[in-house]
Amino acid sequence: MRSEQELDPDECRTLLGRGVVGRIAFWGHDGPRLHPVNYSVLDDAVLVRTLPTAALARFVHDQPGGQVAFEVDGLDHADQRGWSVLARGPLHELTDPDALADLERTRPPRTWAPGERAVVVRLAWTELTGRSLGTGWDPVRAQEHRRLQ
Amino acid sequence: MRSEQELDPDECRTLLGRGVVGRIAFWGHDGPRLHPVNYSVLDDAVLVRTLPTAALARFVHDQPGGQVAFEVDGLDHADQRGWSVLARGPLHELTDPDALADLERTRPPRTWAPGERAVVVRLAWTELTGRSLGTGWDPVRAQEHRRLQ
Repeated sequence: MRSEQELDPDECRTLLGRGVVGRIAFWGHDGPRLHPVNYSVLDDAVLVRTLPTAALARFVHDQPGGQVAFEVDGLDHADQRGWSVLARGPLHELTDPDALADLERTRPPRTWAPGERAVVVRLAWTELTGRSLGTGWDPVRAQEHRRLQ
Repeated sequence: MRSEQELDPDECRTLLGRGVVGRIAFWGHDGPRLHPVNYSVLDDAVLVRTLPTAALARFVHDQPGGQVAFEVDGLDHADQRGWSVLARGPLHELTDPDALADLERTRPPRTWAPGERAVVVRLAWTELTGRSLGTGWDPVRAQEHRRLQ
């Protein structure tokens, strides 16, 4: 049985900032939605590109500022331990041309999936929490940098 | 750019059945919740143990049969490909002593986290879908069996 610890805000921010895939949850028109997405982090917000036809695009269109939850984690199956970070807050579409250009220049979300993902959504989190399981290891040291620049 | 495919029902069921960690999303009393959890699969349902004090226990108590989404995935960062399976449907607490004893005997959820996780919840999915990214690989062949029995 492993112990459970809260991660501090710096640890949460660091772990979130290194990842490239997370999962976003929101309440769609047909109930709860939960999808893996590529993302990037810029200015204390999570940025995601999506298709104009996707449920996430519909959500942000129908409910601008609607609350979402976004999760990243790292799992160590061999030692049955892991960490997770959860960001929660309102989701908005990023439409300002200057902000989009700035994002493109600095840290655009890079997508693995095909398609013209022309809609960019932004979760400026109001809550950022995390936890880890297991003693004798440091999630921040253990996590690989999935994205270096 | 990788192609995206739908997984068929058998593939979804197989991939879901082999895992031990997923993420569950629900609308809690304070907005969207999204938590990694250990789980098992028995009789076309996802079983999760939780603490009586957890948000998930509160949700199932306040909204028996409330809709949830549950996701598992496998990510291959090196090749920027992956798969995910999503189960959606109503969540109920499992309280029947015979059903609990049967679960204990057959395929109890094994938890990595500490604490007396006395509440067992059951998602009997009404929808099971999945998708994969990338060609030239088979997610079912690629996935490790995280649980053999």
